[in-house]
Amino acid sequence: MTFEDLLGLEILDSSDEQVLARVPVRETVKQPMGLVHGGLYAAVAESLATAATQTALADQDVTAVGLGTSTAFLRPISEGTVHAHARRLHRGRTTWVWNVELTDDAGRLCATVRMTVAVRRGPAPDRPQPP
Amino acid sequence: MTFEDLLGLEILDSSDEQVLARVPVRETVKQPMGLVHGGLYAAVAESLATAATQTALADQDVTAVGLGTSTAFLRPISEGTVHAHARRLHRGRTTWVWNVELTDDAGRLCATVRMTVAVRRGPAPDRPQPP
Amino acid sequence: MTFEDLLGLEILDSSDEQVLARVPVRETVKQPMGLVHGGLYAAVAESLATAATQTALADQDVTAVGLGTSTAFLRPISEGTVHAHARRLHRGRTTWVWNVELTDDAGRLCATVRMTVAVRRGPAPDRPQPP
Amino acid sequence: MTFEDLLGLEILDSSDEQVLARVPVRETVKQPMGLVHGGLYAAVAESLATAATQTALADQDVTAVGLGTSTAFLRPISEGTVHAHARRLHRGRTTWVWNVELTDDAGRLCATVRMTVAVRRGPAPDRPQPP
Repeated sequence: MTFEDLLGLEILDSSDEQVLARVPVRETVKQPMGLVHGGLYAAVAESLATAATQTALADQDVTAVGLGTSTAFLRPISEGTVHAHARRLHRGRTTWVWNVELTDDAGRLCATVRMTVAVRRGPAPDRPQPP
Repeated sequence: MTFEDLLGLEILDSSDEQVLARVPVRETVKQPMGLVHGGLYAAVAESLATAATQTALADQDVTAVGLGTSTAFLRPISEGTVHAHARRLHRGRTTWVWNVELTDDAGRLCATVRMTVAVRRGPAPDRPQPP
Repeated sequence: MTFEDLLGLEILDSSDEQVLARVPVRETVKQPMGLVHGGLYAAVAESLATAATQTALADQDVTAVGLGTSTAFLRPISEGTVHAHARRLHRGRTTWVWNVELTDDAGRLCATVRMTVAVRRGPAPDRPQPP
Repeated sequence: MTFEDLLGLEILDSSDEQVLARVPVRETVKQPMGLVHGGLYAAVAESLATAATQTALADQDVTAVGLGTSTAFLRPISEGTVHAHARRLHRGRTTWVWNVELTDDAGRLCATVRMTVAVRRGPAPDRPQPP
């Protein structure tokens, strides 16, 4: 069971330009006041951007590694579903940049995350090697 | 069970100026490559900064609300413990700003997060009201 | 002469939802390698977002104050014109959030900036008072 | 005359681990309300971090290129000098990360900027080539 399973992240559609996904709101993704934890938005963005970049480059000997995220919280969500829409802003030789919008069931923008992904030659330096 | 429980976040020491905490590395906080998921760092920072601000202002009729986080990933962690050290950079009338450093068991800086917390008069607009 | 004059910022159209502006590329906005200095993108975003928020609230006794910016550099510009398009993502009671896209003459996205503006009651604490 | 000259940036001391610099506050670095323009802080951070990275790697065939900045504004400055202290947080193979603190004459923290610099093999793709 990975962190994505723990979050309950469901990928609905994915390409090298955009990803649609969602997370059902359960008690386990809330903070003590009953709102979806802000960390969830950054976690979802990280998962979608890194996976989509890695998948798009699957035929090359590269590893997609998160460099950083920047998140703005606009409106709390306390029930229903968190809808995520990741769009690629930039496809560079060494970095890809994604913007991820998180909306509620009424379609209101609740958080926005920018994620920069590094594209590195070879496997990740600290990635456990197969035996 | 809240999101903090899910993460396994343990607060070791907390004041209105700094917080020490840790997260044991388990499979459930890793992404598919076996590294601690980047979203965990932002989630930990959000939890520490918001809770410490709220606690410091407990005798006032205000609510601490996360406005945004900015995270840089410097070095992956794959085992042991994630150590978090939150320090307050600024205590304003309407916002508090925290910096949170995440280190591994060898004391190496692995991620750094800046978190801005809004201090709002009254309870949060969407906070569930007590009966 | 203000910082905006120094930059050569020209506002083309402005409302409370979006702003169009541009900066002609001159030697004085470049860094030593001959590219537009990255600081210009953050400066332009700050100017557009803060001014548009302040103007939209001109009939209220509030001050628009920048809280933070987050900038990603995607592609360098070395000549022509920097085109800026600011769009409001969120209009809250205490913060407004804007996204600003910077493009070159070919319409390519070269930088993107997210800017959070605080809306504070009364004049700014440190603003020089009229005599 | 470059953008740094326009800003009035003075480097006092520089190594591959930290840089000390300052900017005298003049009318030309202020916004209309009489405060130092927020864009100045990001511009100073960009200049210091990129130059220090490039200088440290001068004997290698690499180019230091800004990837992104994240700035929090804590307290306005309206007179005196802006003091800048850049510290390197991370020296990686493909990215260096710096934190830059901006203080006023009383030593108060007024802004903080995190800057990520990419280290790329060869000259910058769009850098003008010598004849």
